[in-house]
Amino acid sequence: MDIGPTVLAVDVGGTGLKGSVVDLHGSTVSLRHSPTVSPGRAPEDNLRALLGVLAEDARAAGAEPVAVGVVTPGTVDESSGTIVYASNLGWNSYPLRATLEEFTGLPVAVGHDARTAGRAEHLASGASGSFAFVPIGTGIAAALVVGGRVVEGSSGSAGEFGHVVVHAGGELCPCGQRGCLEAYAAGAAVVRRYLARGGRDAVSTADVVGLLGRDADADAVWRDAVEALALALHGLTMLFDPAEVVLGGGVSGAGPALLEPLAAALAELFVWRAPPPLATARWGTDAGRVGAALIGFERAGLLPRFPAP
Amino acid sequence: MDIGPTVLAVDVGGTGLKGSVVDLHGSTVSLRHSPTVSPGRAPEDNLRALLGVLAEDARAAGAEPVAVGVVTPGTVDESSGTIVYASNLGWNSYPLRATLEEFTGLPVAVGHDARTAGRAEHLASGASGSFAFVPIGTGIAAALVVGGRVVEGSSGSAGEFGHVVVHAGGELCPCGQRGCLEAYAAGAAVVRRYLARGGRDAVSTADVVGLLGRDADADAVWRDAVEALALALHGLTMLFDPAEVVLGGGVSGAGPALLEPLAAALAELFVWRAPPPLATARWGTDAGRVGAALIGFERAGLLPRFPAP
Repeated sequence: MDIGPTVLAVDVGGTGLKGSVVDLHGSTVSLRHSPTVSPGRAPEDNLRALLGVLAEDARAAGAEPVAVGVVTPGTVDESSGTIVYASNLGWNSYPLRATLEEFTGLPVAVGHDARTAGRAEHLASGASGSFAFVPIGTGIAAALVVGGRVVEGSSGSAGEFGHVVVHAGGELCPCGQRGCLEAYAAGAAVVRRYLARGGRDAVSTADVVGLLGRDADADAVWRDAVEALALALHGLTMLFDPAEVVLGGGVSGAGPALLEPLAAALAELFVWRAPPPLATARWGTDAGRVGAALIGFERAGLLPRFPAP
Repeated sequence: MDIGPTVLAVDVGGTGLKGSVVDLHGSTVSLRHSPTVSPGRAPEDNLRALLGVLAEDARAAGAEPVAVGVVTPGTVDESSGTIVYASNLGWNSYPLRATLEEFTGLPVAVGHDARTAGRAEHLASGASGSFAFVPIGTGIAAALVVGGRVVEGSSGSAGEFGHVVVHAGGELCPCGQRGCLEAYAAGAAVVRRYLARGGRDAVSTADVVGLLGRDADADAVWRDAVEALALALHGLTMLFDPAEVVLGGGVSGAGPALLEPLAAALAELFVWRAPPPLATARWGTDAGRVGAALIGFERAGLLPRFPAP
């Protein structure tokens, strides 16, 4: 059976690579996971190996891949496909697109993970006018969509939502600034702050959320996280006036435990206008990978039609 | 002498109307000021009267006006020319464009004052990528330019930079929220806070600035204003990554007394990236009126060529 053109789409995360072969209708022909870093192998080595496996998967399915789409964290220059800086990956002015085009012999598109996921979520939301996608995981970013395009900024570093200061002179953020949103509301911060209060063993935000209503330290840390997020979303809304704010990433998996107190905190902060409607990611944790497929097809001059999930 | 087509351009301020007749080269054929409100006369009455005078000026100069451009504060729906809400002017869902088109018999463009001034400043700056114009007067706004267009937001209320919260739970803002940038750094706030500390007679920000280095209360109030502005500009930069931030409005007239401590405060807040370059408005307090002329010509299908001032 001829399934038509496919792309190899990879979401490069801090710990894992999520790769897939996707066709023009958004169907996933193959799905592969591998670690980002392994003994003696840098992220680019594992990425090449994964692309090799995915290309074989595509051919085994009778579909020649026409392009590659890769999304990564960090500061990404999407026009040149260069990773300006990605601390977790050890990339500094790394020519990712050129490297992968040479390796695969295919046209390659490189995108910023949150921004590209934001495009996938924006398409799925159907929102017109401005729109914000806020992935909350180990860190926090924002993809701001205006006029159908994600704001990249003048040096490719727009959307650093996690480093908006919500408490001047507040808690020290791993980035070196004080009082950043991320220092209170990122997954890593929630766990760190809970343990620092003498909380019991907790290794993830989900553990802390599971203790809500039964553990005063968990309650306090979560309240701080929600308050910080509300303050930062208030500021984002004052500047951007988004039609919708879609929360993604692991922390958004808390669902109602996040959305309900967050909506209440926003209702208190907004006095003369309504807060924007909130939703959780329609593509879930696949948004980055779906976005990678989207930019891969675009790079090949093809317009994919991904139905909303 | 035939000076070609002209537009009637008016900047509607909280206290005054600034009107002019402008030709395609940006030359001002006539300049008129009138109060926004006068005994027994609403803003729309004075605006109509001013447009009548300007139209006569244009004809006296041998130039038939081809369109009208008006910029106003408040929430403005630029596509329909409706003033959704402008508290200082008493306009609520007011069909300003339709009203003025009926009165003048000319095509009328209606723009948001800060956003339209931002377009004029963006053109003058020559910045590519994203750009921010921040007028600081009685209140504080921001025109965020992305891809050559000013972000309007999903309900026309983007750019409410003055109501970004810089100190959670902080000083009460006249808007009803707590800790807004405007509660510390707007012209009205600087004077109010100086007087509240028992400061001597000061009726304007310039009075307070004139006391810097000689009056501890003036120093403290100005330091708070600069710190608030730095915090808010830091957040704006995290989200937008502007190529340049241009400060306008009356308070920016403080010049080095504002720019120098502000640059120092920004240098302290930014840890892992450089703050954006700062400049003061190239069109000065004329940016709104110049922007009004720009949208007037665009409404008439003409492309003006205003040289940078």
